[in-house]
Amino acid sequence: MSQTLANMIADNNTHFFEGVEKLMEVWFTRKDGITLNCDLRKIPRSQIETVMQVVKCEIISTTSTDELDAYVLSESSMFISSRRFILKTCGTTTPLCCLPLLISLVQEYAGYDSVQDLYFSRKNFKRPELQVSPHRTFEEEASILDQFFPGGRAYCMGSVNRADCWYLYTVSPGRQRYRPNAARHNLPHNRVGKTHREPDETLEVLMMDLDPEKMKWFYKDVCATAAEATKKSGIDRLIPDMIIDDYQFDPCGYSMNGLMRSVPGGYMTIHITPEPEFSYVSFETNVPQKSYKDLIARVVSTFGPKQFVLTFFTSVENDASLGIDDDNCSVPQYSDYDVDDIQICRLQGYDLTYALYNRFPS
Amino acid sequence: MSQTLANMIADNNTHFFEGVEKLMEVWFTRKDGITLNCDLRKIPRSQIETVMQVVKCEIISTTSTDELDAYVLSESSMFISSRRFILKTCGTTTPLCCLPLLISLVQEYAGYDSVQDLYFSRKNFKRPELQVSPHRTFEEEASILDQFFPGGRAYCMGSVNRADCWYLYTVSPGRQRYRPNAARHNLPHNRVGKTHREPDETLEVLMMDLDPEKMKWFYKDVCATAAEATKKSGIDRLIPDMIIDDYQFDPCGYSMNGLMRSVPGGYMTIHITPEPEFSYVSFETNVPQKSYKDLIARVVSTFGPKQFVLTFFTSVENDASLGIDDDNCSVPQYSDYDVDDIQICRLQGYDLTYALYNRFPS
Repeated sequence: MSQTLANMIADNNTHFFEGVEKLMEVWFTRKDGITLNCDLRKIPRSQIETVMQVVKCEIISTTSTDELDAYVLSESSMFISSRRFILKTCGTTTPLCCLPLLISLVQEYAGYDSVQDLYFSRKNFKRPELQVSPHRTFEEEASILDQFFPGGRAYCMGSVNRADCWYLYTVSPGRQRYRPNAARHNLPHNRVGKTHREPDETLEVLMMDLDPEKMKWFYKDVCATAAEATKKSGIDRLIPDMIIDDYQFDPCGYSMNGLMRSVPGGYMTIHITPEPEFSYVSFETNVPQKSYKDLIARVVSTFGPKQFVLTFFTSVENDASLGIDDDNCSVPQYSDYDVDDIQICRLQGYDLTYALYNRFPS
Repeated sequence: MSQTLANMIADNNTHFFEGVEKLMEVWFTRKDGITLNCDLRKIPRSQIETVMQVVKCEIISTTSTDELDAYVLSESSMFISSRRFILKTCGTTTPLCCLPLLISLVQEYAGYDSVQDLYFSRKNFKRPELQVSPHRTFEEEASILDQFFPGGRAYCMGSVNRADCWYLYTVSPGRQRYRPNAARHNLPHNRVGKTHREPDETLEVLMMDLDPEKMKWFYKDVCATAAEATKKSGIDRLIPDMIIDDYQFDPCGYSMNGLMRSVPGGYMTIHITPEPEFSYVSFETNVPQKSYKDLIARVVSTFGPKQFVLTFFTSVENDASLGIDDDNCSVPQYSDYDVDDIQICRLQGYDLTYALYNRFPS
């Protein structure tokens, strides 16, 4: 480690940044089902920027494919496709505050009149006391969402009395309850809006306490450009064939969005807080994998976390899975990590797998 | 419904009883592993009665087999075998308060020096504000247990923002962490106390809002004796070959313990709060089943709940399962019920399945 870097790390003892993101994903629809002319990307850029002001972040950069607009933000990322809005923001941003404005803009410009599915999730914050209302506690976040969407469900995965857990709020106002009995009783089919057009399985790997040697690329005095950090760290080899939009923060920190050429709507996004006192890296992709075990192994070996959380969503219709049954577990096993919590949750139309990994020996 | 019964129900509008039980199960061991002469049943009856005073309930009746002492309590049941203590108490009892006394009695009389595993669980209370500290909130309960046992883990299954959830605190001070990697690294085997002598899979069915026609047997003016209620309700046919210890409360309410002749240590226990304003029935058994689906169907059809929670614990060594994969779900499906939440949790050495069922159509 260079002397400069050592100094920087010493300086960092006096400050803190919350790398843990709040992740909000919203799918829109119309009550009459006629969504042919609807598109979230019809919302003008100036209006999107107003949404960002409410969230307390800014757009840094934009990339697009036919299916997807990807934004690098001052705090993480945003993805907008025809009917799905994804906002992932770290720091002390307030994504739940933008919901009323977002929904009114969607009605005015995009042509949708209903939220079909909403997912709000995050890991526990390292320093929740630094957050701004309504993000100080998950109870507060769930209570705000309950006001917008009656019938939502709030879950806590992992131990509620330990440091490490992961929260999820999910509500599907535009979907009937998942009812295996409906078919038997000759009721209208229970899976409204059955097929999402975009790939519909999402993997997140949320990494804590990372290897400082692997974090050094994300300091400006080590890598002069974002492109260099992307290459030297190995990020460009995690999922090949990506249009990469990467960004370096000053003096350290890194964000990237990747758009998949060969998978319409396929993306990945990585956000890095490298400071050793509060290091955090998130990895997310919706690109279907032949082997999630191999992809996760590449991600973990690229960043070297002491601990990581894995979450995997897949729609029941997709019938995708993590595709492994190592040692009779339902999550991948790695020789360097123990799995301390495994929870599998059947949500409305979605299966969710949650697992917490700790490096072995600890 | 008889006029007398109707009057009774009217009277009941003015009172309330919390049928939801707190369930504490503790397995004891010795640090040196030499447990041959240890036995929880060496604790004198007078001392057990002192424990009950701390919990705020009384022993009503006792049945024994060679393997198991079963107690009907004024509030639910207690089971004591050589090394496992099960206390299940409803109302406003305080089972966590007895832990220090229980552990000192175990050391003095039973010869064990360590808690191997402890499980504390309950459904959310109907009226938590009527509970006595430390049972007012699950946070309070978990915090008390954290003081006794560092390293315990607290989980909430189901929606934390809805009425229906189920809490679990689990700690295994006498067990190493579950470590699939330990074998690879040639460490001492990670499953201390590998085999429990008693059957080690536990099914609970916690039922709410029950069919009044099926609850009528549990009023003294309908069935003159507990034996008559056991027979007319069909409880005696749920799991055959049981030594049944049943008890009627005045004017209504019912408890039973069953000890299995053919399965050493096998038990079942049922507790019934029949009043329609706050009806609740719990069913629990550790008797291994060929078809849990069939057993649960018999239980549900005997009591007619509008809603029920299923929990199923099985030790990883046992490798037992609910034995069904209906409709690609991991819990049984019934034509009269929708499954609203399904969660599967891998604990230390145990797999836990949780599901919430609601009658269809609701």
